[in-house]
Amino acid sequence: MTEPLKIALAGLGTVGTGVVRLIETNADLIARRARRPVRITAVSARDRTKDRGVDLSPYAWVDDPAELAAREDVDVVVEMVGGSDGPALALARTALANGKSFVTANKAMIAHHGLELAKVAEDAGVALKFEAAVAGGIPVINGLIDGASANAVERVYGILNGTCNYILSTMEDTGADFGEVLAEAQRLGYAEADPTFDIEGIDAGHKLSILAAIAFGAKLDFGAVEAQGIAQIKAADIEQAHGLGYVIRLIGFSEVDRHDGMPRLFQRVRPYLVPLGHPLANVDGPTNAIVAEGNFVGRLLFQGAGAGDGPTASAVVADIIEVARGEMGPAFAMPVEELEPMAAAACGHRVSSAYIRFTVLDRPGVLAEITAAMRDAGVSIESMIQKGDPDQDGVVILAVVTHQGPEAGVVEAMRILEGSSSLTAPPLVMQILAN
Amino acid sequence: MTEPLKIALAGLGTVGTGVVRLIETNADLIARRARRPVRITAVSARDRTKDRGVDLSPYAWVDDPAELAAREDVDVVVEMVGGSDGPALALARTALANGKSFVTANKAMIAHHGLELAKVAEDAGVALKFEAAVAGGIPVINGLIDGASANAVERVYGILNGTCNYILSTMEDTGADFGEVLAEAQRLGYAEADPTFDIEGIDAGHKLSILAAIAFGAKLDFGAVEAQGIAQIKAADIEQAHGLGYVIRLIGFSEVDRHDGMPRLFQRVRPYLVPLGHPLANVDGPTNAIVAEGNFVGRLLFQGAGAGDGPTASAVVADIIEVARGEMGPAFAMPVEELEPMAAAACGHRVSSAYIRFTVLDRPGVLAEITAAMRDAGVSIESMIQKGDPDQDGVVILAVVTHQGPEAGVVEAMRILEGSSSLTAPPLVMQILAN
Repeated sequence: MTEPLKIALAGLGTVGTGVVRLIETNADLIARRARRPVRITAVSARDRTKDRGVDLSPYAWVDDPAELAAREDVDVVVEMVGGSDGPALALARTALANGKSFVTANKAMIAHHGLELAKVAEDAGVALKFEAAVAGGIPVINGLIDGASANAVERVYGILNGTCNYILSTMEDTGADFGEVLAEAQRLGYAEADPTFDIEGIDAGHKLSILAAIAFGAKLDFGAVEAQGIAQIKAADIEQAHGLGYVIRLIGFSEVDRHDGMPRLFQRVRPYLVPLGHPLANVDGPTNAIVAEGNFVGRLLFQGAGAGDGPTASAVVADIIEVARGEMGPAFAMPVEELEPMAAAACGHRVSSAYIRFTVLDRPGVLAEITAAMRDAGVSIESMIQKGDPDQDGVVILAVVTHQGPEAGVVEAMRILEGSSSLTAPPLVMQILAN
Repeated sequence: MTEPLKIALAGLGTVGTGVVRLIETNADLIARRARRPVRITAVSARDRTKDRGVDLSPYAWVDDPAELAAREDVDVVVEMVGGSDGPALALARTALANGKSFVTANKAMIAHHGLELAKVAEDAGVALKFEAAVAGGIPVINGLIDGASANAVERVYGILNGTCNYILSTMEDTGADFGEVLAEAQRLGYAEADPTFDIEGIDAGHKLSILAAIAFGAKLDFGAVEAQGIAQIKAADIEQAHGLGYVIRLIGFSEVDRHDGMPRLFQRVRPYLVPLGHPLANVDGPTNAIVAEGNFVGRLLFQGAGAGDGPTASAVVADIIEVARGEMGPAFAMPVEELEPMAAAACGHRVSSAYIRFTVLDRPGVLAEITAAMRDAGVSIESMIQKGDPDQDGVVILAVVTHQGPEAGVVEAMRILEGSSSLTAPPLVMQILAN
């Protein structure tokens, strides 16, 4: 086992460069922990001349990343090119089929093609690993596959997108509105120039679908993730929520619904009200945190940096070290054919409390209209708060918190109110996370 | 790999019974994740007739646990007898020497004999695993060996004793004094009839020494742990700390001191003041939480149930599943001979802020005496608070917070004040955890 493990890197952006730095900086330690040296043999990126702050001269340079999959001097291909399809996917397919193990931080590709790639890896007897694809440096995939392996996982949920968490916790701290904080996050590099994937919950959905497959032994189904983003959240919501004892966080939430004996997979990304005493309520800034609840272990929390070159490189190299040790188990903890296909669970019969924010005209009869709709839909109201004076258009914000009840009721109440002339915008519904 | 893995259990207390229940309840899932069935073949405990709420009739009963180590139908011996020496140690030695893998929740035994046992396991080519020995159900050993494996760990610290954390957080919530809360904890089963190991920090020290060996690749050295317990903490300390923006937690803290180029191991269990914004400040009740700081990943937090039959069984069975998968790596992440022997670090040159609580006579000159001692020792005072009126003996509590400075200064100041007639009890020094 003293033969070095030979690595090829495709993509030398900040993460790829971070992997080079990590493998060089911690080389001795890695060799002791991996029980053999880990050596980079070849690299590939778009621009050979760019100064990346690391010396790449010891490594073979390859212009076409696809060539890495064919090299004799490569045991593991590490992909940091990005994109769910295109060159990254082509490289993954070829590398695995050629008997190279494959390590990636590419959540979009795994969310879309993870099952296909896992099958190719199994057939070739090599490893497919993607710890860095979920929650950056936090070893939560390892935590589910190894640490919590003895448990039937009852639910897995958490803060999976650092950009959204930075925006929400900054709105909380400063009282500023969404657009303002987003612009600041872009200036600081916490949000991309095109932030759609982050703020619409797509990125968190990619990660959630990967976690759910591993946690529940279910066939990965990104297409069934219900995703809603954070752009609608106003400073007033955060203030109201705080007054009620909650913070607002974008939560990816998944569990298996077995209400009629047939397992169905529930996967939702949505802003939730999180009770102040809940461990996720204290997660601020770009930090990520994931809760897994097991039938024996109870609630486990994994928290850390969800992005950044150092943390992501840490997760990539942890995967490489597992390959070096010969730990080549299936990518989703069990062989692909053993993963259970599960239909998407409808949310209607789920029981929860909800916060509903209405923007309404400040005129007589509005409250009566809303409360009548709630009554007709069988939704019981716990509290109703209207804070502040009407703005210049006579519009006020009204926050309603419901008692525990089936989500179908809230959906029905919103249907009844659809098109009401009292409402100046569609209501925003956020579930309250159980403590 | 479809041959079942055959398990023998020694000890059928609450944890042992929990392991039986877990293996029965989650049998199918375990077989899918372990890629082979896990089957209990033999059990041993003191009293065969006791009703444990599980059916033991399918398993061979052995009166002497030592016999388990010799049985043909056993691949893994799981020890839940307890005690650092005696039958548990004898069983470990024999089982490993006989080529059985060995899984245990016994922190005292690993803290005292872990290196010896790890060497026996290596020589026999079998696994020694003890995830359950540290922080109950939290997979932190796995987190260090696998998840954070790419990092040089800079420090590892956390809340490692649920009894102390329950007592401190209850004192915080209720304002009650130590003795009162301890008695209640004993009634509720959160503290043992003889709570010495817990409240003196010995139990946390066992766990800390195991974590430190793995995190730093250092030879385990429980004897070098500086341990101080929580019995001296008064309700007034908690109140003062809160006013200053801190909570008090018993923290096990370890890092490698390299100030003169020679690595020395610093291991301390002591009550710390934890800033309210720190993730450990929100850890209440019997929960445990561990922070590992790596040179690339930054700060990782692992949190969950630190004790209890379900969580402990979860960790024990996770170890069994790793053995079933053939993951037989060294117990401390690297072979025993590669672990670095490190002398104990003296705390004198460590730089920190401290909280010092004096119980003093309320008379002129006391403040001058204390501040002069601090000045002479080179300790700079940040704040000084005396709250409340003197008690019937004219005694008041005076809390001093120092600026950052070498701990040696505080030690010297305490030496100067030793025997002072102004002090009615020895001062209590608690370091402030950096945020």
